[in-house]
This record gives sequence, structure tokens and C-alpha cells, in this order.
Amino acid sequence: MTNLNIAIAGLGTVGAGVVKILTKQAEIISARCGKTIKIVAVSARNKHKDRGIDTSNIAWYENAVDIADDANVDLVVELIGGDSGAAYDLCEKALANGKHFVTANKALIARHGAKLTKIAEENNVSIAYEAAVAGGIPIIKSLKEGLAGNNIKRVSGILNGTCNYMLTAMKETERDFDVILKEAQDLGYAEADPAFDIEGTDAAHKLVILASIAFGAPVNFNAASVEGITAVSLSDIKYADELGYKIKLLGLCSLEGGSVNQTVQPCLIANDYPLAKVDGVNNAVFVEGDAVGNVVLEGPGAGEGPTASAVVADIIDIASERFSYAFGVPASKLQDKTFTNNENECGEYYIRINVADEAGVLANITDIFKRENISMESLLQKPVKKGENVDIVCVTHNVARTLILKAAAEISQLDIVLNKPSVIKIEK
Amino acid sequence: MTNLNIAIAGLGTVGAGVVKILTKQAEIISARCGKTIKIVAVSARNKHKDRGIDTSNIAWYENAVDIADDANVDLVVELIGGDSGAAYDLCEKALANGKHFVTANKALIARHGAKLTKIAEENNVSIAYEAAVAGGIPIIKSLKEGLAGNNIKRVSGILNGTCNYMLTAMKETERDFDVILKEAQDLGYAEADPAFDIEGTDAAHKLVILASIAFGAPVNFNAASVEGITAVSLSDIKYADELGYKIKLLGLCSLEGGSVNQTVQPCLIANDYPLAKVDGVNNAVFVEGDAVGNVVLEGPGAGEGPTASAVVADIIDIASERFSYAFGVPASKLQDKTFTNNENECGEYYIRINVADEAGVLANITDIFKRENISMESLLQKPVKKGENVDIVCVTHNVARTLILKAAAEISQLDIVLNKPSVIKIEK
Repeated sequence: MTNLNIAIAGLGTVGAGVVKILTKQAEIISARCGKTIKIVAVSARNKHKDRGIDTSNIAWYENAVDIADDANVDLVVELIGGDSGAAYDLCEKALANGKHFVTANKALIARHGAKLTKIAEENNVSIAYEAAVAGGIPIIKSLKEGLAGNNIKRVSGILNGTCNYMLTAMKETERDFDVILKEAQDLGYAEADPAFDIEGTDAAHKLVILASIAFGAPVNFNAASVEGITAVSLSDIKYADELGYKIKLLGLCSLEGGSVNQTVQPCLIANDYPLAKVDGVNNAVFVEGDAVGNVVLEGPGAGEGPTASAVVADIIDIASERFSYAFGVPASKLQDKTFTNNENECGEYYIRINVADEAGVLANITDIFKRENISMESLLQKPVKKGENVDIVCVTHNVARTLILKAAAEISQLDIVLNKPSVIKIEK
Repeated sequence: MTNLNIAIAGLGTVGAGVVKILTKQAEIISARCGKTIKIVAVSARNKHKDRGIDTSNIAWYENAVDIADDANVDLVVELIGGDSGAAYDLCEKALANGKHFVTANKALIARHGAKLTKIAEENNVSIAYEAAVAGGIPIIKSLKEGLAGNNIKRVSGILNGTCNYMLTAMKETERDFDVILKEAQDLGYAEADPAFDIEGTDAAHKLVILASIAFGAPVNFNAASVEGITAVSLSDIKYADELGYKIKLLGLCSLEGGSVNQTVQPCLIANDYPLAKVDGVNNAVFVEGDAVGNVVLEGPGAGEGPTASAVVADIIDIASERFSYAFGVPASKLQDKTFTNNENECGEYYIRINVADEAGVLANITDIFKRENISMESLLQKPVKKGENVDIVCVTHNVARTLILKAAAEISQLDIVLNKPSVIKIEK
């Protein structure tokens, strides 16, 4: 049996997980792909750290990028992370040197995927990144291959486990954002610097990759509108629940009038929306295709095992000579399209306004809505003790986002309004 | 661009759907696979029926099996159905003549898959059947490729849309089995002869295919235990609901002590079981892998669009030269394993006993449980009007199936017991 010689750059949790799977499952993996997958080179920061794996007979590189020049390596697995520096340099050089490239690096693919797939194709090698989107869930393969007969209409997803854990825990335990963030950090579900997750960047990296595959345009991170969950309060979650909704950080892309829409933002979704039941650290992706209808894939979006599972699947595909283009079609067939984001959207909105309990408050607010021609589907105001502040919660009929934001800005100027109103899209 | 010349045998709903997708999506499909997919031959019963598709420039075969001798055909799509006759003959002959074979025929693969994959491999062609299991959901691809790095521990699924529709409708509308069956037939969700669906055969065909891929043993339909939903009553569904469970027809396979367990039966599943929220005609498959953890894929399990979507995905894979073994590994690497089924299982059971409202009834029943050493987790008996019959509902602790069936048989011999007790496994 012939070998596929691979190198692994980055031996953190996921890298060690990949080594473990390839070792433990060596026999069945060989049966599945007809080749022996042999780790011939690795690179990591500290050669002497105990990772529970034996690297003694494997070439060690201090500088990961040098792996690209190792003539013995057929395929490079990049698990360094980051969209520049060693990860990028290794990718570009490995592809140019005719080596296949497998990565879990969503930032790299989201920001440089369009360029990198061209380099891969010029050198007749494959670039694969199943682990970059929704961890262990085989969504990239499903979208590129399993649903390849479909005209995709929309893809929406819960793409960040940290945010989904936090929103779920806030709802279930009725505790505030800051308390839950601290807890998530203690549990290892959030980083010490959580900005990348809670501000939506990580979800957006994944979303724009899905959008490129779904709609055949070069991946375009800068065109996405990205809003995280930092402004979502426990009050919003509770009111949403009363109204029959959950709040989720939703990545959503769709093709409308020839334009690709890419939005990451917290949304109210009804309890019967296919992603409403996805709780905790899980990820899920909801694909709407013209032939297949609605398909949902749910599973763990991060962690050693799930991510390594996806990396190994890519390696097995390449060993089996099952190649697919990085974004489903050759780079030359990706079509530049216009992009839209949530600035252009219309929809129903939830708006919560915290006000002093004074006479005439509601009239002041409804006047503004009337002036902006925004009509209400429902309005909720709970009785409070005299002198307490009051939440006024409105659900609008269909309205342009620009208009509801304009109204919210006007409302926030009113003396009796105590905080910036919460404005959250209702996604159907 | 080169062509992939295909023939379609069977132009019913799905066949017509495949033609429509290949026509409508011709451009993007060519971009995805680098070939033009050309329908060069078809076969169906009635040449002159209007199917909304133009077959005038396509070779017409009265006898589908003759397609296997058409030198112009690279790939045969079989949509005739049935595990013998034309479908089987066409498959065997097409493979022997070096043509790739794509089918939606679960009976054919479940009953003859082990033999057919050998013929395919001997002739260096591919046999693909994504559409045979769970319709539009790309579960075959996910299991064979997307999760190929995993040691699969268990696969459970809601694999029959007819049964799931009926169980869902019985619960939601509180109407009896017969009424809902009639309704399902009127809606086109159940066949005029519904036996194949409601007796579990269809789900079992799909289950044994999943089991073969998951555990690497030749597909073995005869080793499955198969029970449908005909004995599930509205009362059972209501009591299950009160106890915090749903009743679903579950196909379940697992590897235990080197034996492959294959069971299709109605089960009580807790509301937090990953398949509990799958309602209506949808199918879903829950895969438990050692690396990935728990992954669930949900979507439409039947119908023109979803089934055609899966068939076209297989065609695109073959056109792209993305080949995989029919059951994940070469036929020679499939290992004969022992099989078990529900006769050997242990677990918690739900048992409902309908009795006359007389003194001492409960003691008679609990005596039998005591004699058989079956301990109870809970017991439910609702107050009734004097003289009405009473349901006694018990949930057991862990017990061998043989024992609970023995106790149920003894209980049904008691004079005061009016019907055969319902015995349903609780699946965790």
C-alpha cells in the first residue's frame, strides 16, 4: 500500500487530536482510503512539551514555513491559526510547492480564500477546510457535494459555540451577560480575551465561507455586517421568551436579486425556527435549497475531538483522491457579485425602551413611530411599582432597518428614555 | 468539456425530478464537476405520458435492462424500485458491463448490497445510493466521508416519514391510529397499501445500510429485528407525554461487544433526546462517534425534490471522479460480524395494562412483576368513574426484554386484563 506523507504544523489541542485519531484508527483509515497516512514532519513552539504523542521518529521543524520545502511531504495540515504570519506563509508556499493543504483556520480562508484557491488550482493541489466551519459537522462537504444539485436560497447558522452557550445560559439561569461570560471563561468555553467570539468576528469568518460556496462568489469578509452579542441583555432574553422567541446569534446569507447578503447579528427567532432548539455550545447550520427543501445539521462546533474529526476527514478525502474545488467550482468560475448587508434589510423588529415611569411617556414614543411611519404588531408594558423604571417592548410590522434605527435614535433623545433602546431583528 | 453520458431507468416522480434538476442547473453542475452531464437513454412504462420533460432526443428503452448493453452509457440511474426483477437485473448487468450505478432503491441495497458492491469493485465502477437513506439528507456521504475518522458507536434515526407523520399527528391532534392513517393516505404521505411503511420494513432497509457503513460488516437485512407502529395507540402516546417522553419509530444500530445490534421499533424517547424534536414527515439521523461526539442531520426523507437532489449529488460525485466504496471500505475489508437484535436487549420499559376496575387488580399485576424480579421506577393510574376500565402504566428499571415480555404474557392471562399489554422500550 502506498503512503500519503503528511506534516502537521501546530501541535495544540487539535493537532494532538489529529495525531491521536490517525494513530488509533490507522487500520480502518487505511481500509477507507487505500493508503497509509504517515506523519513525517511536525512543527510546534516547544519540542519538549509532553503532548501524549510520540514524535521521536518525525522530522521536527522550528519554523513551520520550512515544512513547505520538505520534499517528503505530500500534504500539510495547518493548525497554527491566524490569517497572516506563519499560517499564511506556510499555506501559500506549500500550495506553490505542489502540496495539498488542510486547515481548521477560518480566518485564513475567510480573508484569503479567493487568492489561495487560485494558487492551489494553478499547482493542481487541493485546499480543504472542513474543520474551519462548525467544527465536527460535515457542512462544507454537505454544501459542496451532498447538496450540489441545488440552487441554494439561504444558509443560516449558529456558528459560534461561545455565544450560543452564553445566550442559552443567560436564558436558562436568568443571570446577566457579565456573570455568564466569566463562567464561560472558567469553563473554557470563552477565551481570556473573548472579543473575537462575542463580537461576532468568528461567526462572520464562518458565514462568509458558507456564502461563497452557496452563491459562487469569491469569499468576501469585508462585505459582511457583523454585530456580536455584547448588547444583548437578560431583559431582552426574558421579553423575547414571553413573546415566543429565542435570541440567537445568527449568521445568515442569502441571494436576493443577484446580490449576496451576509449578516451576523443577534436575532429573535420563533420557537419553531429550525435553529431555535440548538442550545449550549453546539453549532448548527440550516440550508434551504430549491430541490432538497430544508436541511439542518447540528453538532459540536469546536473542541479537540470534533475539530480533529473534520481535519482527518479532509486528509482521508485527499488520500482517496476525492478532490473538490475549495469553494465548489473552479476559481475562474466564481462570479463577482454585489454584496448587501443588514443596512439594506427590511423585517420585523423587536425594540425595548427603558423609560422613567411618568405620564405621557408612551405617547412621546408612539408619536415618533407614527412620524416615521412604523406600525406596531404588538406592544408589551409590564406593571411596575410606582417610581420604578419601565420597559416598553414593541414588535414592529415590516420596516426598513434604517427607519427603525432612525426612530430608535430619536427615542433615545427623549428625556424620559434612560438607555439606548435595544433593537433586534426578528428572523423568520 | 467532456460528457458524462447517463441513462435513467424509471421516470416516475423522482426520475422526472432528476431530469428537471439536470436541465435547470446544467450550467452550475458543469462548473462543479467539470463535465457536461448528458441524458442519453431513458426507460419507463409509458413512452407517451406527459412528464413535463422533453425526451425526444434521448434513446428510449422498453426494457430497462437493455440499457446495460448501451455502449453510449457511462452511468445508469435506477429509479424502478424493488429488490428483484428489472431493478436487480439492470444493476448487476450494468455493473458487469463497467457502468457506474446510482440508485434510490433501499430494498435493493439492503438485500443485495454486499453482493453488488463486489461486482462493482471487480469492474472498477462505483455504486452510489445517497437517495436510498433519508432522502435529501446527505447522511451516506457524511457517514462514509465526513465522519471517516471516527469509530462510530451508535447510529439512531427516524427513517420513515410516514410513521413519523402519523405519530406526530396522533399526538398533536389526539386522534386514533386508523383515522390518522386514512388522513396520511389522503395527503399522499402513506401508500394505499401502507404495510411496507407502518410495519417498519422501509425503516429497516435504511437502518441496515447505515449499520454496514458504521460498523464495517456486510449489509445484513435478515439480522434486524423489525417492529412497526401498528400497535402504538393514542393512549400510549398520551401517557408517554405525561411521563416526559415522545413515541418515535426508531431505527437503531450499535456495536456492542463486537456484535452489531440492529433494531427498528417504536421507542419512548425523552424530550431531550436529540431526535425527540423531529416531527412530521421529516427524517433525521443521530450519529455518535468517538471523536466528533454527537451529530444530527435532519431534513426531508422523501419526495421528488429531496430524493432527486440526492441522486444528482451522486451523479456529480461520479462525474467529478470522487469515488468511495459502497459501504466505506472495499468489499474484501468488510468483516463478518455476529448480529444481535432486540431479543437480547436490556433497558427500561414502558408497559400499559388495561384492566377492569376491580379490587386487587394492582396486587395481581405487581405479584407477577415481583415473581419475575422486575422492579418499577414509576407507576401511573388515573382515577376513573366507577365501572370504567383502567389503564395501569408502569415504567421499569433496567430489565431484559425477554423478562418483560414474559411478565406481559403472564399478565395478559389474568381475567381482569382486557387487552394485550403495550410494551415499549425507553431509549436513552
